[in-house]
Amino acid sequence: MSDAHSELSALMGPRYSRSAADRDAHAQSETHVSAGPPEGVAWPETTEEVAAILRICHAHRLPVVGWGAGTSLEGHALALHGGISVDFTRMTRIVELRPEDMLVRVQPGITREDLNRELRATGLFFPVDPGANATLGGMAATRASGTTAVRYGTMRQAVLGLEAVLADGTVIRTGSAAPKSSAGYDLTALLVGSEGTLALITELTLRLHGQPEAVSAAVCGFADMAGAVDCVIETIQSGIPMARIEFLDTTAVAACNAHAGQDLPAMPHLMVEFHGSAAGVAEQAQRFGEIAASQGSAGFRWAEKTEDRNALWKMRHNAYPACLASRPGATAIVTDVCVPISRLAEAVEDTRADIAASGLPGPILGHVGDGNFHAILLIDPASAGERATAKALAARMAERALRLGGTITGEHGIGMGKLDYMPAEHGPAWAVMGAVKRALDPLNLMNPGKLVPPHDPV
Amino acid sequence: MSDAHSELSALMGPRYSRSAADRDAHAQSETHVSAGPPEGVAWPETTEEVAAILRICHAHRLPVVGWGAGTSLEGHALALHGGISVDFTRMTRIVELRPEDMLVRVQPGITREDLNRELRATGLFFPVDPGANATLGGMAATRASGTTAVRYGTMRQAVLGLEAVLADGTVIRTGSAAPKSSAGYDLTALLVGSEGTLALITELTLRLHGQPEAVSAAVCGFADMAGAVDCVIETIQSGIPMARIEFLDTTAVAACNAHAGQDLPAMPHLMVEFHGSAAGVAEQAQRFGEIAASQGSAGFRWAEKTEDRNALWKMRHNAYPACLASRPGATAIVTDVCVPISRLAEAVEDTRADIAASGLPGPILGHVGDGNFHAILLIDPASAGERATAKALAARMAERALRLGGTITGEHGIGMGKLDYMPAEHGPAWAVMGAVKRALDPLNLMNPGKLVPPHDPV
Ligand SMILES: Cc1cc2nc3c(=O)[nH]c(=O)nc-3n(C[C@H](O)[C@H](O)[C@H](O)COP(=O)(O)OP(=O)(O)OC[C@H]3O[C@@H](n4cnc5c(N)ncnc54)[C@H](O)[C@@H]3O)c2cc1C
Ligand SMILES: Cc1cc2nc3c(=O)[nH]c(=O)nc-3n(C[C@H](O)[C@H](O)[C@H](O)COP(=O)(O)OP(=O)(O)OC[C@H]3O[C@@H](n4cnc5c(N)ncnc54)[C@H](O)[C@@H]3O)c2cc1C
Repeated sequence: MSDAHSELSALMGPRYSRSAADRDAHAQSETHVSAGPPEGVAWPETTEEVAAILRICHAHRLPVVGWGAGTSLEGHALALHGGISVDFTRMTRIVELRPEDMLVRVQPGITREDLNRELRATGLFFPVDPGANATLGGMAATRASGTTAVRYGTMRQAVLGLEAVLADGTVIRTGSAAPKSSAGYDLTALLVGSEGTLALITELTLRLHGQPEAVSAAVCGFADMAGAVDCVIETIQSGIPMARIEFLDTTAVAACNAHAGQDLPAMPHLMVEFHGSAAGVAEQAQRFGEIAASQGSAGFRWAEKTEDRNALWKMRHNAYPACLASRPGATAIVTDVCVPISRLAEAVEDTRADIAASGLPGPILGHVGDGNFHAILLIDPASAGERATAKALAARMAERALRLGGTITGEHGIGMGKLDYMPAEHGPAWAVMGAVKRALDPLNLMNPGKLVPPHDPV
Repeated sequence: MSDAHSELSALMGPRYSRSAADRDAHAQSETHVSAGPPEGVAWPETTEEVAAILRICHAHRLPVVGWGAGTSLEGHALALHGGISVDFTRMTRIVELRPEDMLVRVQPGITREDLNRELRATGLFFPVDPGANATLGGMAATRASGTTAVRYGTMRQAVLGLEAVLADGTVIRTGSAAPKSSAGYDLTALLVGSEGTLALITELTLRLHGQPEAVSAAVCGFADMAGAVDCVIETIQSGIPMARIEFLDTTAVAACNAHAGQDLPAMPHLMVEFHGSAAGVAEQAQRFGEIAASQGSAGFRWAEKTEDRNALWKMRHNAYPACLASRPGATAIVTDVCVPISRLAEAVEDTRADIAASGLPGPILGHVGDGNFHAILLIDPASAGERATAKALAARMAERALRLGGTITGEHGIGMGKLDYMPAEHGPAWAVMGAVKRALDPLNLMNPGKLVPPHDPV
């Protein structure tokens, strides 16, 4: 393998590193999933460099794992079978901004916060907002979503086209700048969610949205969890075009209060936001208020000013560290199921009861407007027993989601952590994913060991 | 091959036919594209029958071509390399209606009109409405759209999951009833738009929408085409949530007047519809009215009553036969390009000038809110010269769309008719489509000769 590394060094100069520090930094994971460090880390700046890197790795049969912000939760970006990490944090340019077409072309390493900062003056914004400040390449690769998916969709809807480099270094473009197309297989959709197992994404064409004329946001407590969840179900079914509708159970509320210095009452809460014209927002808020009242809401706390609204959503985006901090020293097993909206109450309540019976702390929160929620199972990393308990809880959540017609992951993806559940969700369709993988990456060099059925090792 | 046919007869009884009448009925195409008849026609009623048919065809290396309503425009459903036609018109059941999740599971042979008739009492509707009364299976296979795609999306957004049968008879399920998922490759999106080249679709899970509280529709003439098109661009850019915004040029208006007994003035027109609350609709209509006025609109004709609205959209859906009837005896080459909204004016105007210079009649109309439009090039089927002229016009439209950052087909798909343009649109990505095809259908039995690069004949 030394040949590959010296070729990579010759190509990249100081932007290829084999130092222990750089390699270890790319063996970090947000969660309990772990693997050894990659053999080296490359920081390309252009598509051509990515293609050249892949040609070298292809010639030397060296695995390649993309790295965005490293915030994925199932060990997606870890170099399970060795090889190199391709870190996109030097590819952060906005390539082309086309406000008149409400789209932007970006390099994959730009983060969602930086992108929105750049867009601020245009009156447009990019809606997908995972809790972490992830990169757009990583978000596309995991088919991420966030608090606004209920209105604006996930990365599935947000990505209009891609530039990507295949295992052998071939550069392809998918999609176009037109709003729709029927010109053949939807390779854009195939790459979105493929977790770097088919290609490295080197550019994304993203759909933008107009900043709403009026915005209004609120938190709203409920006497019990059933009331909050039923309020979500009724709101979605009534067709109110919610921009955001998030759930926090009492435990999550306590963690957020402590972490963000807030004083929400100790009860389950919904956090909501309305977008539209001033009249439209008022109408939506009124209709939502009626539904909430009928479900036993304890009244609203409105965030009128922009700062208040920002503080509210910052608290939501920081819910994960807040939960972690609620049990000092803990590590988390973050679950992520998604069910049809009509089964949401059952799914959340059974999960709550199951966690309570286990004795583990496990706040529940999520993008419930999509039927998507997480339990953050907080375990003592030194306790094998707690780990086993948490894994069993997570497995039961996945089974329950499937039994209710849902999915084992609403937004986090498969990585290494959820491979075992794939047969139950997909049956023979999982082998079809494997066939697609082999067709595009016959040598199994692209992020091997993730997403598809295990096949020939590299 | 006689073995395969007798096995199919044994399996299907009278629902497998080799009569000349049945075979010829499955060699019909709406347009100029043609091929010989299939060797036989099967009418399955269940997924198990479709799987059994495919197992027989697989064992005997017999090509299989799905048939919905046969309304596709590029020869998609023709048996170019022989084999059998699998006609889905006996698989028209609603398998499960889940109003509380706003979704429905259907067999692929149900038509969009029948589906909406069945849904009427639920307060929900299915939005995708190609001009023809196509089947949902055919619509998914071509990634169809229609007049409401600007608001509700195309089949890409409408299909939440599929059941499908692979070339070897394996039955797979893709997607789930949850609103989103990150569980691996998006096989749903891969099959939507695959034109029967990867699998036969035996069931679809479709997203429904609530019937809007208020609806209002209008036609609106413009002094010139530039004004109408600029009005569309400005409307879309201003973020008014149009439910429909359709364009008809003066020639198309004349054809529709004659066919539908209407009396629209001889000028380019937009047909628009607004959905929302009563107040919301009024607000949208007012904002749109201001933009239209600033672009030289000649005023609105409102369709207040449901019957008037239905008559309006019936006229629009019948625009294709109306155009055909405007040149008796003519056949049509129907083009279908889609461009970024900012380039729409240029694309339409250059197309108009090009058609005018050719001397052929060629009304222009389309789903312009998506940047999508068609020229219906009307030719004398006996004139090789006219055919060549029309084909050259169509080729220039495709090139122009690509030059402007768009696509060679917004909604009709590739079939046989647009294969030649695929390299220009996709470059090396076309070979990736071929690799996916070979992975799922190594014997090239599923609708061979369509969409992907030609490979080993069956
Ligand atoms: C506090 C917290 C909150 C979170 N909240 C959410 C949430 O609300 N919604 C949500 O969806 N997720 C959430 N996540 C998970 C995580 O943020 C997402 O999975 C995100 O999309 C990962 O992006 P990243 O840039 O960190 O990618 P990484 O973790 O670096 O990589 C993720 C995967 O993408 C691949 N990859 C990265 N870049 C490329 C590229 N250019 N081309 C091809 N493959 C590439 C990697 O190989 C890996 O397989 C959260 C995580 C944390 C820590
Ligand atoms: C007057 C007119 C107006 C039109 N307007 C529009 C429009 O506005 N928008 C638009 O998008 N299109 C339009 N079209 C084109 C056409 O209606 C669409 O392409 C439609 O989706 C075809 O559906 P179908 O049921 O007729 O399919 P068919 O023509 O029977 O088949 C189309 C393709 O799908 C495959 N197929 C059919 N069923 C299945 C199945 N169950 N599984 C797998 N593959 C299958 C076939 O093999 C073929 O490749 C129009 C056509 C006409 C004649």
